[in-house]
Amino acid sequence: MKKILYVALALVLTAFCLMACSNSSTPEKSVMDNILTRTSIRHYTDQPLSEAQIETLLRAGMAAPSAMNVQPWSFVVVTDTAVRAKLVSSRVNRMYAEAPCLIVVCGDEVMLRKPHDAPADAPLEARPNDNWSIDCSAVTENILLAAHALGLGAVWTACWPYPERYGVVKEVLGIPENVMPLSVIPVGYPAEDPAPKDKWKPEKIHHNLW
Amino acid sequence: MKKILYVALALVLTAFCLMACSNSSTPEKSVMDNILTRTSIRHYTDQPLSEAQIETLLRAGMAAPSAMNVQPWSFVVVTDTAVRAKLVSSRVNRMYAEAPCLIVVCGDEVMLRKPHDAPADAPLEARPNDNWSIDCSAVTENILLAAHALGLGAVWTACWPYPERYGVVKEVLGIPENVMPLSVIPVGYPAEDPAPKDKWKPEKIHHNLW
Repeated sequence: MKKILYVALALVLTAFCLMACSNSSTPEKSVMDNILTRTSIRHYTDQPLSEAQIETLLRAGMAAPSAMNVQPWSFVVVTDTAVRAKLVSSRVNRMYAEAPCLIVVCGDEVMLRKPHDAPADAPLEARPNDNWSIDCSAVTENILLAAHALGLGAVWTACWPYPERYGVVKEVLGIPENVMPLSVIPVGYPAEDPAPKDKWKPEKIHHNLW
Repeated sequence: MKKILYVALALVLTAFCLMACSNSSTPEKSVMDNILTRTSIRHYTDQPLSEAQIETLLRAGMAAPSAMNVQPWSFVVVTDTAVRAKLVSSRVNRMYAEAPCLIVVCGDEVMLRKPHDAPADAPLEARPNDNWSIDCSAVTENILLAAHALGLGAVWTACWPYPERYGVVKEVLGIPENVMPLSVIPVGYPAEDPAPKDKWKPEKIHHNLW
């Protein structure tokens, strides 16, 4: 009788083990699932983000690739209620007042580079950076994906290239010349649960030639 | 004696089960780990990608957000050896010939929108899309992250805004007017294993005001 019990115990444990293994998502599945289920969240609860959560989002942002590894980005994290309210410039971005945290992704429009073919000790030269908005877009996407992975809701609101938007953001936050806010990302605990959009359109794919 | 064996078996299975559970990464951890460990891969083996892998990469790309949900993107997947060789325009992109697959991310510079305040049945109007390069940058980053999750290596090579690069790509691939290749992403099984860069710089973070 005891023998049967031990065998049963072993079988139950094996079954449990197999179930645990099959349920644990592979890294590949998690990453793809996170990309495919992320969607814009525009309403948030009052619950503030922790310092650790904000740091995780910024670490994701700074892990983005950049042309010639210039890393032209910087960030303003806005949690102050009065500052958030001042950033609301239209109906489009009224959620700035609701989200407990805004991450403003800024790019340096000018980069310091050694002139081409100059000696190693040549002074650096200021040149326009043609890639700042591209690089800061990758940063913004990384932050959106990290927010979704953390169970937070976020949305990409455009700042550049709209003077009526980046003008307000630059003035309120005191952002210096040559630095341009590309996006403002409100982040918070979601107070809505919209279904992700299915944007898969195979007709947009060409093979070898257009 | 048999009793001891059964108990031992049960204990071994329990231990295995606990190990499996503790090793299974949480979705949050997988997503962040994937973002933080992704790095540019510029050398690839000959092994071609499967149709399923290419579809996964394109699904990730098309899941990107876009301004006003315009989804201004389209893709050319180049696997043909002769076409890949023709796309090499400089030392900078010689890996186009080596990678078994190139994904060219294109954006529509013009969008069709109803004029502001027009009635529902008003004809659509062609307008410049100020956001195509931003949206296609998010697409590119999603593809790079998906490639890394699949164990593939990839690198963002810039096409726009460099006429000497996008000129070649548009001509070789027959990309129509008003459509602009933003990036060319070589993808393959990695033939190098570079360490990811640590780009974390807390001094780039400002709080509430710059």
